[in-house]
Amino acid sequence: MNVFIDSNGVVKRNGVNTLKMISRTRLIYSFSPRNEPVETAKPGELVLFETIDALGGQIKSEDMTLNELDWSKVDGATGPLYVEGAEAGDTLVVDILDIRVEEIGVMVVIPKYGALGHMDFKPRVKLVRIKDRLVHFDGIKLCAHPMIGTIGVAPGEGEVPAGSLGRHGGNMDTKEVRAGTRLYFPVFAEGALLAMGDLHALQANGELCVSAVEVSGEVLVKVDIIKGKQPPWPILETDDHLAVLACGNTLDEACTYASETAVKGIAGARGLSFEEAYMLASLTVDLEINQVVDPKKGVRAVIPKELIGNVEHLFIG
Amino acid sequence: MNVFIDSNGVVKRNGVNTLKMISRTRLIYSFSPRNEPVETAKPGELVLFETIDALGGQIKSEDMTLNELDWSKVDGATGPLYVEGAEAGDTLVVDILDIRVEEIGVMVVIPKYGALGHMDFKPRVKLVRIKDRLVHFDGIKLCAHPMIGTIGVAPGEGEVPAGSLGRHGGNMDTKEVRAGTRLYFPVFAEGALLAMGDLHALQANGELCVSAVEVSGEVLVKVDIIKGKQPPWPILETDDHLAVLACGNTLDEACTYASETAVKGIAGARGLSFEEAYMLASLTVDLEINQVVDPKKGVRAVIPKELIGNVEHLFIG
Repeated sequence: MNVFIDSNGVVKRNGVNTLKMISRTRLIYSFSPRNEPVETAKPGELVLFETIDALGGQIKSEDMTLNELDWSKVDGATGPLYVEGAEAGDTLVVDILDIRVEEIGVMVVIPKYGALGHMDFKPRVKLVRIKDRLVHFDGIKLCAHPMIGTIGVAPGEGEVPAGSLGRHGGNMDTKEVRAGTRLYFPVFAEGALLAMGDLHALQANGELCVSAVEVSGEVLVKVDIIKGKQPPWPILETDDHLAVLACGNTLDEACTYASETAVKGIAGARGLSFEEAYMLASLTVDLEINQVVDPKKGVRAVIPKELIGNVEHLFIG
Repeated sequence: MNVFIDSNGVVKRNGVNTLKMISRTRLIYSFSPRNEPVETAKPGELVLFETIDALGGQIKSEDMTLNELDWSKVDGATGPLYVEGAEAGDTLVVDILDIRVEEIGVMVVIPKYGALGHMDFKPRVKLVRIKDRLVHFDGIKLCAHPMIGTIGVAPGEGEVPAGSLGRHGGNMDTKEVRAGTRLYFPVFAEGALLAMGDLHALQANGELCVSAVEVSGEVLVKVDIIKGKQPPWPILETDDHLAVLACGNTLDEACTYASETAVKGIAGARGLSFEEAYMLASLTVDLEINQVVDPKKGVRAVIPKELIGNVEHLFIG
């Protein structure tokens, strides 16, 4: 990505195209149909979202303690973007064209949090350098894999904290949400109201300590709409597979939801009975863990594209 | 694998080595320190286990109904093998050298079972052909990936049904338990008492309908012992990674157990504090689902070998 902002604040990409940009000062802390859009886009348009790290950019030193954090500034997402023509019942299509992360990321350990929250440990703040596509964790070099932790649309009603997740997306913390992938969100509110943030330079399936390499950055997306139909959960598309991104109060509950959409989708795509599709899914659909540490637990059902074909087979109730 | 049985019933491998074989008529239906060994082996010795499919070889036709099954003959494991010198507190090392499956497998759907057991569906029995490394699911061809569903040692006390799982292994239904991998089991009883069965020609992570392609076959293993130390859970080793195979009453509980062993192991291997290891694991340890359908749910914490080095870093309480 080669994005410049000229002296008038006009964004140029590769010196030619201008595109819309939403600054990382335009933050929401909950997904809601009542949020005021900060920008609009037409279907097919590119938009650059500047995002702030999940700690709100507050941690500048490892000497800082978690007590000093303003927790009301944590988990902010940039947006929302109003997509023209999007209405409840439609699907918002988001192509993630590029993700760029800054050079310093932060990690935290918070007592009582994470997969081992029952154990006795101390709070900890750590700065991590990201350079030449490597994450430098003290002397250990790890390949960076930038991803989007939080991305979603407004729910139909109420407010969902941006640190939580649901059928509207949100803080899904799914390591496959990377540049080159496409997301499909059910639209619940006029304009869809897309927002995103919480970039990670690196995260494993599970995000087991409750943080990844939290980092500010930029995401370039293209938005589009499919009219009059939608999936029950956000869907992720890569070159090879489609994945249903479900969540629940437990991983087991999330697996049930993800499996149901996958099995019904396969039945429809292949013209199979429920029973046959149930068996075929047992052989071909991998249930994978997104994260085990957020207010709801997240799982993805990964379906080979050659088995299901068109994503719209997953647009079932 | 090139195994022959000559006219005297002596097993020869590649025409040269003889090796011990345990027939698939020697079945146990629970893992217990009271099971009588049916064969013995020295450390370093090869043993061939003939196994029967998880339905006990009873299903020969798709016209058969589940009501006709003798459920007391389901989930049998071949063995147990007494490994000389193995005592409680040691580790049994099992190299899976080869897995050969027969040409006809069976799948079942059982009302109230599987990830979608709450839904309304009918019982179903299906025969599946396995040929030229392909599984033929009606007109759909899928690459076969033979694996061992059930493999374990005797627990320290009591009996664990062979269809369940625990720290002794058992019905782990982990798709990575394939030829070319090595398993480490904590030994709880004299001789370890290794048994295995429930081969699958193909299974996805989750095994969501409760069955995979259930098939009879043969497994060639080499057994060895590490004296005086052991892991808290079975460990799987591949070329690239070590994986802690944990289980619990829920997936969430299984994730906690798997994460604890992984984080403590990384702390020991790298000389890190618990807090630092917790963060590093959040970036590098993938929590993956084994299965969501057995009496206990199974998860594996997959750790890059380059991060942890020697498996014995995972031999912690």
